[in-house]
Amino acid sequence: MTTIALDVMGGDHAPQAPLSAAAHFSLKADCPTLLLVGDEAVISATLATMPHAMSRLRIVHASQAVAMTDDPKAALDSMPDASVSVAARLVQHGDADALVSAGNTGAVVLACARTWSRLPGVPRAALGAVYPTEQLHGESNDPFALILDAGLTLDVDADTLEAFAVMGSAYAARISRNARPSVALLSNGSEPKKGTEAVVLAHSRLKARKDLNFVGNVEGTDIPRGTVDVVVTGGFVGNIVIKMLEGVAETMQTMMRTAAEASLVNKAGLALLLPALTELKKTTDWQQYGGAPVLGFERVCIKAHGRSSPRAIKNAIKVARRAVETDLVGAIRDGLQRH
Amino acid sequence: MTTIALDVMGGDHAPQAPLSAAAHFSLKADCPTLLLVGDEAVISATLATMPHAMSRLRIVHASQAVAMTDDPKAALDSMPDASVSVAARLVQHGDADALVSAGNTGAVVLACARTWSRLPGVPRAALGAVYPTEQLHGESNDPFALILDAGLTLDVDADTLEAFAVMGSAYAARISRNARPSVALLSNGSEPKKGTEAVVLAHSRLKARKDLNFVGNVEGTDIPRGTVDVVVTGGFVGNIVIKMLEGVAETMQTMMRTAAEASLVNKAGLALLLPALTELKKTTDWQQYGGAPVLGFERVCIKAHGRSSPRAIKNAIKVARRAVETDLVGAIRDGLQRH
Repeated sequence: MTTIALDVMGGDHAPQAPLSAAAHFSLKADCPTLLLVGDEAVISATLATMPHAMSRLRIVHASQAVAMTDDPKAALDSMPDASVSVAARLVQHGDADALVSAGNTGAVVLACARTWSRLPGVPRAALGAVYPTEQLHGESNDPFALILDAGLTLDVDADTLEAFAVMGSAYAARISRNARPSVALLSNGSEPKKGTEAVVLAHSRLKARKDLNFVGNVEGTDIPRGTVDVVVTGGFVGNIVIKMLEGVAETMQTMMRTAAEASLVNKAGLALLLPALTELKKTTDWQQYGGAPVLGFERVCIKAHGRSSPRAIKNAIKVARRAVETDLVGAIRDGLQRH
Repeated sequence: MTTIALDVMGGDHAPQAPLSAAAHFSLKADCPTLLLVGDEAVISATLATMPHAMSRLRIVHASQAVAMTDDPKAALDSMPDASVSVAARLVQHGDADALVSAGNTGAVVLACARTWSRLPGVPRAALGAVYPTEQLHGESNDPFALILDAGLTLDVDADTLEAFAVMGSAYAARISRNARPSVALLSNGSEPKKGTEAVVLAHSRLKARKDLNFVGNVEGTDIPRGTVDVVVTGGFVGNIVIKMLEGVAETMQTMMRTAAEASLVNKAGLALLLPALTELKKTTDWQQYGGAPVLGFERVCIKAHGRSSPRAIKNAIKVARRAVETDLVGAIRDGLQRH
């Protein structure tokens, strides 16, 4: 039985959202064992207000918690008993198989880095992020692609990009059920010689690998299109890409609101399109994906979005379980040893 | 009287589009003197089919031309009489004040680099690009902001980013009539310590400058919003940003088409929105901006988009003239000497 350590003190809506996710999930037959890591009194009091099945839940007390706005290093230094650190240690000692947190991203990753070992051949860890695309991906026709790194490792060399490609491919194969995901480097042109030195060198190395479905470079235009399943880039660029996509979605909503206010004809047009827009919003809802994988360690960590609803956290737990049960870490280790 | 050297052999629709722009413009009182650089026979024959005023036009023969798909270096090496090189030399010798070309971007920039001197204090040249934004900019409420570098200088250090900030600010002030344009560094967070080493160092230097309206870092979300007038970044990131915006626009069009085909209700909704969508398309039409400035040289070069229509090329000529008449190069030189 898979066991997940859930940092219930992390996230904009903590502890309510994580606990609500756990309580709701515990009533289902397919719920893994959940270690609820956080303030015992708060957890007990909150759980008492929600229907739940204690047989699948266990409370692990942690007396401290990192706030969303805390400086990650200072917070972890001053709080040895922070819930995220306690959860990471549970995984380290084999009491849990994976860590799920909607908390402070920097603190979650730092807790992993301080507690777990990096896999051999991984120069730096990466945060994966799924984003909506025009084209569909994998067996289940997901309108999402994976990009990594989304912001952990700003500057990357060729070794790091190659490791990211291996990790992203393994993740897409296991989590998105995509037997042979297409992988590409993000660059300023499709030709192999286009890009920074690191990109050009990584391109030639990835081209030589038979274990990856490396399709070459993609450009910025390919991001919204979703030409490939896995986009590999450094964390500086990846962070800007992900935030641009968020910004475009926001700008579109503002523009629609402004258009509706500007004229009744626009308003009528938008009203007719409402079902299509709602459907679009639903299919491209990141909450169904629940979380971003922290990749490169010997253990599994899924970082749920800070704004996560209970549903998003439940989905992050499912992703973590699937990563454990499909041996994502073993697959990444194999891929890294292949070269 | 300002004189512009127009590379009539450059662009997807050359020589027709550049010559049509020149012929049409020549009939107006405000047309600068245009040196039409290219194959004399072709130019004469094409002009003969168009109403034009020869008093404002002069043909300068160039026996060779760089194709859009040519390798820039190989092409310029093997074609000393390429129209873009001849045009750059006309500017170098003072026979023209600025160069306008819709040709092969790499060849245009290389022709400038080989023929002109870089301004003191400019480590590398930059290509500026305007892109549509939600917020409006400058005196004329343009729904456009400027980003540089859009792809010339992939890796940047702090000196280069600082020079780009000075050049972008000067350009926005003169061309977009924006007395004190806001300038920001693109980064993975708004805090001064966020970003690559180069970005963090450039931030602290720009912060200390009183001659620029430096507002700090912006993130990816700020790009579509258009929070600032000038976004400064390296060419690798800038190229990806600009192409992502193109990709988003394409994806939106595809999605609207698909929605219209999927149901009559969607089709009716889109039909009602058509005037608003057409207006949006018109206001965000890059062709009205005509061109991207090549910044950092002692001379003015405006690179029009390869797909430019005659109208876009005419607007590029107007931008080049404005850059000359407002002494853009002098302003950049002053800004660079200030530190």
